[in-house]
Amino acid sequence: MDVARIERISSLQNPLLKSIRKAVAKGSSTEDGCLVAEGFHLLEEALSSGAKIEAIIGTAQGLAGVGSLAGKIIELTDSMFRDLSGMETPQGIMALVRIPVWDRATLNAGNPLIVALDSVQDPGNAGAILRTAEAFGATAVFALRGTVDFANPKLLRASAGSIFRVPTFKGELSELKMPLYGASAEAGVLASKVDWRGPCVIVIGSEGQGLCESVRKATKGVRIPTRGVESLNAAVAAAVFLYEAARQRGDEGDQG
Amino acid sequence: MDVARIERISSLQNPLLKSIRKAVAKGSSTEDGCLVAEGFHLLEEALSSGAKIEAIIGTAQGLAGVGSLAGKIIELTDSMFRDLSGMETPQGIMALVRIPVWDRATLNAGNPLIVALDSVQDPGNAGAILRTAEAFGATAVFALRGTVDFANPKLLRASAGSIFRVPTFKGELSELKMPLYGASAEAGVLASKVDWRGPCVIVIGSEGQGLCESVRKATKGVRIPTRGVESLNAAVAAAVFLYEAARQRGDEGDQG
Repeated sequence: MDVARIERISSLQNPLLKSIRKAVAKGSSTEDGCLVAEGFHLLEEALSSGAKIEAIIGTAQGLAGVGSLAGKIIELTDSMFRDLSGMETPQGIMALVRIPVWDRATLNAGNPLIVALDSVQDPGNAGAILRTAEAFGATAVFALRGTVDFANPKLLRASAGSIFRVPTFKGELSELKMPLYGASAEAGVLASKVDWRGPCVIVIGSEGQGLCESVRKATKGVRIPTRGVESLNAAVAAAVFLYEAARQRGDEGDQG
Repeated sequence: MDVARIERISSLQNPLLKSIRKAVAKGSSTEDGCLVAEGFHLLEEALSSGAKIEAIIGTAQGLAGVGSLAGKIIELTDSMFRDLSGMETPQGIMALVRIPVWDRATLNAGNPLIVALDSVQDPGNAGAILRTAEAFGATAVFALRGTVDFANPKLLRASAGSIFRVPTFKGELSELKMPLYGASAEAGVLASKVDWRGPCVIVIGSEGQGLCESVRKATKGVRIPTRGVESLNAAVAAAVFLYEAARQRGDEGDQG
């Protein structure tokens, strides 16, 4: 690495560090619209996805693990980095990544398979849903009101990098011009009985509350057959619907 | 509630509280073999599952929310409870629940569908797998070496009460006398092409490492068809295999 490019910051009052700390605490992007992508894996994913990296911040050891990189590089002491980190076991590396901009027209174009989140507040669950959405070929993840911010640093980590590749939007269900299905343990229709091959949306509710009344009314209820439990984990439910959709859409390669 | 039965503890050095604090910190049961089941939902699940509750510990407010209960009841101040709690937002209630004892003979009896965990260390994932295992009719969850303790308080919460109902064991794969499948992104065989209707085991590895070498050798690899991602979240992967197995076993009620 070109040592000359490394800037060392020694004050916790530095505006950039304050802005990162605030984003981590609030679970949001920084004020100037960057994602706080912490950890080696997420940095690698940002790089391999072609995301725009504004700065890399790390400890001496963390930066040494990164190899050759362009752009702004900031070195912190171990204790300053720990102070900034949102991870239980900080890896000494984070990147500020420009929030990807997605074309809203993609929502209704082609043969969409969209996961909508209704008040899913847990960033771990929402991130896992993004990761699963990519794995099963969903075309977008759509946040209804009350849902965790897609820029939440914990969500980024749980997405394992899918945040850089899966189009994400915030909005109202009425914007989506296609059949709308709502995940509900009380619904009569089984996931496997729905035709997922055309454009469609599956709405996943929060684990505590399920779907809100207006979403329930706007969607056709579909159910995953289970027994013994009141509900499934939100990420698990999304995965089962998406697996079923991918199966029907013939995404299994050698699937008969 | 019968006020006379409530014991008030005001010292953090109380042996029972020390034992709970240690269990929460270590992610284990208490030294005398109790699960630390924190939160209203988990207490309700323990009660409705017929688990043996040794004590209920709460703040005045938390205990008031519980209603009529038998057994030992301990009241703490809010700050003492917070000190004890393993939750980000403590609800002021926890129970000490006797660890359920499962008959090892059930492992190979009947038509088993077993989820084995190979070094799954995240308690949230392992708990979600227990919950999903119950939902899709798995007969046991089996921990191989390196896997998080089933008594981990975070695992209990993520299981949403399934820990009280799904038989759990620790052991070696060689004990399981039936076909063994190992989840692997590199495997050639798709989950949907495996016959899950007879006795079988699906082994789920850790997200970072996948299956360890010895497990890989002892199992037949099976794959969930995905694209774009390196791997799935461990709980999501387990859910997809179990959903596929339940589908084949005809657990969908009106499934054709």
